[in-house]
Amino acid sequence: MDVSSPAPLAEALADIVGASACLTAPADVAPFVTDYRKIYTGRAAAVVLPSSTDQVSRVMAWCYAHGVPVVPQGGNTSLMGGAVPDAHGGAVVLGLSRMNRVLEVDETNDTLTVQAGVTLAAARAAAEQAGRLFPLRIGSEGSCQIGGNLSTNAGGTAVLRYGNMRDLVLGIEAVLPDGRIYRGLRGLRKDNTGYDLKQLFVGSEGTLGIITAAVLKLAPLPRATSAAFVAVTDVEAAVQLLGEAKRVAGPAVTAFELISAPALALVRQYLGGVPSPLAQEHDWMVLVELNSGGAQQALDETLQQVLETGMERGWVQDAALAASLADVQHFWRLREEISDAQTRTGGSVRCDVSVPLSRIAAFVRKASAGVLALVPESRMVIYGHMGDGNVHFNPLRPARQTAADFLAAHHARVSRLVDDVAHGMGGSISAEHGVGVAKRDELANYKDPVELELMRQLKQALDPKGLLNPGKVLR
Amino acid sequence: MDVSSPAPLAEALADIVGASACLTAPADVAPFVTDYRKIYTGRAAAVVLPSSTDQVSRVMAWCYAHGVPVVPQGGNTSLMGGAVPDAHGGAVVLGLSRMNRVLEVDETNDTLTVQAGVTLAAARAAAEQAGRLFPLRIGSEGSCQIGGNLSTNAGGTAVLRYGNMRDLVLGIEAVLPDGRIYRGLRGLRKDNTGYDLKQLFVGSEGTLGIITAAVLKLAPLPRATSAAFVAVTDVEAAVQLLGEAKRVAGPAVTAFELISAPALALVRQYLGGVPSPLAQEHDWMVLVELNSGGAQQALDETLQQVLETGMERGWVQDAALAASLADVQHFWRLREEISDAQTRTGGSVRCDVSVPLSRIAAFVRKASAGVLALVPESRMVIYGHMGDGNVHFNPLRPARQTAADFLAAHHARVSRLVDDVAHGMGGSISAEHGVGVAKRDELANYKDPVELELMRQLKQALDPKGLLNPGKVLR
Repeated sequence: MDVSSPAPLAEALADIVGASACLTAPADVAPFVTDYRKIYTGRAAAVVLPSSTDQVSRVMAWCYAHGVPVVPQGGNTSLMGGAVPDAHGGAVVLGLSRMNRVLEVDETNDTLTVQAGVTLAAARAAAEQAGRLFPLRIGSEGSCQIGGNLSTNAGGTAVLRYGNMRDLVLGIEAVLPDGRIYRGLRGLRKDNTGYDLKQLFVGSEGTLGIITAAVLKLAPLPRATSAAFVAVTDVEAAVQLLGEAKRVAGPAVTAFELISAPALALVRQYLGGVPSPLAQEHDWMVLVELNSGGAQQALDETLQQVLETGMERGWVQDAALAASLADVQHFWRLREEISDAQTRTGGSVRCDVSVPLSRIAAFVRKASAGVLALVPESRMVIYGHMGDGNVHFNPLRPARQTAADFLAAHHARVSRLVDDVAHGMGGSISAEHGVGVAKRDELANYKDPVELELMRQLKQALDPKGLLNPGKVLR
Repeated sequence: MDVSSPAPLAEALADIVGASACLTAPADVAPFVTDYRKIYTGRAAAVVLPSSTDQVSRVMAWCYAHGVPVVPQGGNTSLMGGAVPDAHGGAVVLGLSRMNRVLEVDETNDTLTVQAGVTLAAARAAAEQAGRLFPLRIGSEGSCQIGGNLSTNAGGTAVLRYGNMRDLVLGIEAVLPDGRIYRGLRGLRKDNTGYDLKQLFVGSEGTLGIITAAVLKLAPLPRATSAAFVAVTDVEAAVQLLGEAKRVAGPAVTAFELISAPALALVRQYLGGVPSPLAQEHDWMVLVELNSGGAQQALDETLQQVLETGMERGWVQDAALAASLADVQHFWRLREEISDAQTRTGGSVRCDVSVPLSRIAAFVRKASAGVLALVPESRMVIYGHMGDGNVHFNPLRPARQTAADFLAAHHARVSRLVDDVAHGMGGSISAEHGVGVAKRDELANYKDPVELELMRQLKQALDPKGLLNPGKVLR
């Protein structure tokens, strides 16, 4: 693009956001048109970085008037290609990163009001400074943004106790495709004056509006944390152990993560042979974390009691209790680095599925058997948020097959098989990662036609020109 | 209506639901066209009582094809005229009471699946039988139905801990205005495969679809309950006490209800002079309830600790701790009978408002002063779910004025004043009771025009003929 004579689009948008916040040079645009895993790459007519809701509104109004598609982007950490433009080249990427102010911490109302571009880590830090917890915990917290967390209804490792992002928000402000502003930035726990409009924008992946700010719920900052790395007999035993933990510890049960033997082996290797918390190898492990506002000792005793019951009943084979914060961090590192370990190893089919908790053991059994029948030496890297019925079921290539060969030969069939098994058990083919473009065309296979019709009716009602994040979620 | 020659409408509907489930005789229809407080009375062409989702679907399809409005009705306990038809006379009332089966209790998944016509009491009983809690607690539990609880996003006295009805549902099945069935009866805690359609139907008061079944979340059944009836210095002190309770007891804090002196006086009189739990009279009381899965003694000690801190800091003037379940019930009776006491006394302006918790003391002060300036001897009957920022602010007529005189002279101005004060503090003019017809025309005064436009766009998208619960929520 000739900088001395910018296209009308860039000129008009630069007038709104300022010349330095309207990027058109290929090198400036490049980071915004490729996802962080470098799987999805598109093109953009410009990238704009507005600094206020008013600027977002004016950008949207201009684009609406001129039929220009807009792709909203937060921290660009989508796993589903949800935040980058397609190859068409006519779209504007609207990045929220400059809207990164914490607007208010209300300690009495237990709320935190932030602009959409505040990173999750910054939101958590602002809460902590006020002696409160903002409970969302996901691996990308340093780069992902609250707006993206909301638009994808982010999940993570504390959903069991605190819920998904949808459960953590009281109000939002959003700009509609035509530039109108929905002003719902209210910090109310109860408001039944009509349809709950914020629900539309949460989890719709930027296809109905652009979230520009939010009022988030805060929780008391836990004063005690107990964690254990536990070898369980099988997934069924893990489910039983979770039931016992909920019975005894109730809302203190914050995380309950499943880890398969191949997942642990992979991450230990990736981390340079770090030790396992357990003396021996086991087929299945769980990482249990309890939190409370009470005394550390009482919480430790509660966790011990749960584990002792688990041993007596034959669910637990061995367990390591965290004796220090360093232990807790070590346990979590083993869990949280699995994903990166897979990326570095290459050759994984990644399935983010959920089923009712009562079906999770059967799901793992049936899906594993099915995949092993297709690819006998594939490794069952299975981990994730079992307490929510959600596992990342990510078969890994056989050790002696290349990533490229494995994916070319098996990706489609393995993915379909796992999704079929989950769906057949009343489950979801995307528990927390969303749809983006990666799963978009799969929805036709798994959603009831009426659901897809309703989704299209909503899209048509709110974005009749189809300009907002086109091609995401719905074709 | 001539029974030997029924109208085509009644004949067609009787063909679907059976003759005995299609009511047209005035005496049969009467209970369905008047709300239980006898404030709103309309007319109906027929009342149908389908026994299955398929029948609901066929009724809706027929009515859609023939342009007949349909008013869905659960337990008919709306306070806002949301469940009865208007005077037009052409509408069909569709009652869900025969769809009252508990479909499944899944103890491992902690879910309860019910048809929409199951009463709240029956749902709670089914959960309890499985050793679980379904946490919604509202006064009308014996007659209100789960479908109505969902369509109005019911609140009540345990929202502080467990959330509103929206937070207690995982999946729903609903029939759309044209008879299509949205099949979302899934028991998943995580599902990000597209827009969360159930959110549309929850809280939309039967204007977008008819909920026919739901999967509800269950919680562990508490094993210990501690409660106290506490005199606090003022509302600000109550807010401080709540903060301390949350800090010390965390999620054990289940209810935190405010009661003003005139509210307590009224209910004691109505209950035939039952004693107050406190020796002296005080301006403000709170009813605090903690629940846990742990030991009773530990919970009692926690509550005592909170109250002792409250005494030391000057927030608490006196407190009665429940020494038995009978005490707990006595405390709750004093709280829960206030509403009926008001109805029987007559001459109340009922305002169901919420504000951020950080504004609640200022709200009560400002609204009280405003009302007393208008009606100097009116009695400030104020009570409700302070922990959620929600109070029922219900000024009662001066003792020497009749109900009719008071309401004629002051209802409109008092109601407007209270709503204005709440709105001015970022609050809601209907925290939990909904809109119905009672607050419908007020929305124009308090909602941002963009919000109303969005609501209309949704209504138009889902119910283009405007046949479902017409005139409710939106004109």
